[in-house]
Amino acid sequence: MDFQKELDKKIEMTDNTLKKYLSPRYPERLYEAMSYSVLAGGKRLRPVLMLSACEAVGGNMEDALPFACALEMIHTYSLIHDDLPAMDNDDFRRGKPTCHKVFGEGMAVLAGDGLLTYAFEIMLDTVCAKRDIKYANAAKYIAHNSGTCGMLVGQVVDVESEGVTIDDKTLMYIHDNKTGGLIKAALVAGAIIGGATEDEIGDFEKIGYNIGIAFQIKDDILDVTSTFDVLGKPVFSDEKNNKSTYVTLHGIDNAQEDYKTLSEGAVKMIEKFGGRSEFLKKYADMLVNRIN
Amino acid sequence: MDFQKELDKKIEMTDNTLKKYLSPRYPERLYEAMSYSVLAGGKRLRPVLMLSACEAVGGNMEDALPFACALEMIHTYSLIHDDLPAMDNDDFRRGKPTCHKVFGEGMAVLAGDGLLTYAFEIMLDTVCAKRDIKYANAAKYIAHNSGTCGMLVGQVVDVESEGVTIDDKTLMYIHDNKTGGLIKAALVAGAIIGGATEDEIGDFEKIGYNIGIAFQIKDDILDVTSTFDVLGKPVFSDEKNNKSTYVTLHGIDNAQEDYKTLSEGAVKMIEKFGGRSEFLKKYADMLVNRIN
Repeated sequence: MDFQKELDKKIEMTDNTLKKYLSPRYPERLYEAMSYSVLAGGKRLRPVLMLSACEAVGGNMEDALPFACALEMIHTYSLIHDDLPAMDNDDFRRGKPTCHKVFGEGMAVLAGDGLLTYAFEIMLDTVCAKRDIKYANAAKYIAHNSGTCGMLVGQVVDVESEGVTIDDKTLMYIHDNKTGGLIKAALVAGAIIGGATEDEIGDFEKIGYNIGIAFQIKDDILDVTSTFDVLGKPVFSDEKNNKSTYVTLHGIDNAQEDYKTLSEGAVKMIEKFGGRSEFLKKYADMLVNRIN
Repeated sequence: MDFQKELDKKIEMTDNTLKKYLSPRYPERLYEAMSYSVLAGGKRLRPVLMLSACEAVGGNMEDALPFACALEMIHTYSLIHDDLPAMDNDDFRRGKPTCHKVFGEGMAVLAGDGLLTYAFEIMLDTVCAKRDIKYANAAKYIAHNSGTCGMLVGQVVDVESEGVTIDDKTLMYIHDNKTGGLIKAALVAGAIIGGATEDEIGDFEKIGYNIGIAFQIKDDILDVTSTFDVLGKPVFSDEKNNKSTYVTLHGIDNAQEDYKTLSEGAVKMIEKFGGRSEFLKKYADMLVNRIN
């Protein structure tokens, strides 16, 4: 398997379908704002994970494609709303002005709302077209892990924890939900659509947990071990913001070790799925070994 | 049938179930913000329409109850976001401080996002529990009419039309989508869950269109014919805001006449459903004949 070629293919499938969903129509300004943010680049981490999990259990990736795009829309809506002045007040993302800087705050709120609603519309369209309850199960899992039991509550607790010293339990809650929510959603929904058994779905939930937490610990480690040039953003930002991180709570050595245990655990669990999971294994490996 | 008793029952069913869905849990502040707005009162117009439509086609209202609550959450999320400083900048709604005045702007954005996501989670939970594709069809219709083909696009065009003279086509687009979107969603989803035929679903879509537009024309009429004391808000506000309305575009006489034609048409279509639709007929009658 040519890993890079496979990765490019999955990203291209996602991008082409996203472009189709977000083709210009009335009211144009709304679609411009939605596609500006969705098509602003990004690694398509969640779609790639979903397509790979579907593939790893022997499913047809095309079946998961609408859900992969829907999940990317959910991810993007959360970025648009997080960047708002009332939240993180960020003017730039991936080197481009944020949605509200280009389209105004009101339209940014509506573009986020639009992407979230559209994501569910796309998933429900698929459920109705396929007339197969497994798609509803996948959509339900995504709703659960995007909202009141996932990304959204992680973000709420993260916002509430600003400038406050938090304990390990709260930090793990934030990481597992804010970052882990959509990573688990990607893997589990992909596995469900691919026809996974209950046991396999449970495995993917654990893999998602490991990857989500490892991903965040890596972020915390890089903030104190990397450089501006490699990361493309300031280092020691957590320290400057008095932010409790895995490193401040556990020390750099423990962080490195726990990170290694979690990521190796994820890769080991993926190996259980045999040859069809080769891409996912390499992708998980790449994710956790990233240097920026 | 004791109309008032029936109405109270439907509202009570909705309120009790909403309270159950929004019972306090971690993170408490989010659930406080969500339930503050959902339980702030309101006529439960959309839930009552949904339950009545379900009943009118011979369905069991209990089956539609989760969807009725979900729709009320979608309606409430839109109010929370519309009230934000970046949008209408309203400090009060129904005599109470708006969500962002009480919980801050960031939390108001998140509470709205939370309600929208939770609404879909509740609907998808029902689809999965019932294992019946008709629930997915109802959820799909709601997604469609809340988002990129309904309420949201109506709101976008309304925001874009501020201070601009618009033509009749644009005004009807705003009314049919912004107000009509969720009214159609309520009636059609209720009918689908109640087991309506394709033809009956088409009827409810038309009834929803008529009620939605009539409701808005009534708003425009009351703004120039009522008084502060009756309406509980300033009259002639559209004129002051230079807002194009059905009355400014067509004149008061035509507005009255078209309003009568639309509302009588809705009631006539409801009559087709016979005795089981008696409540819905009276409710539609009450809605279109309201004086405030």
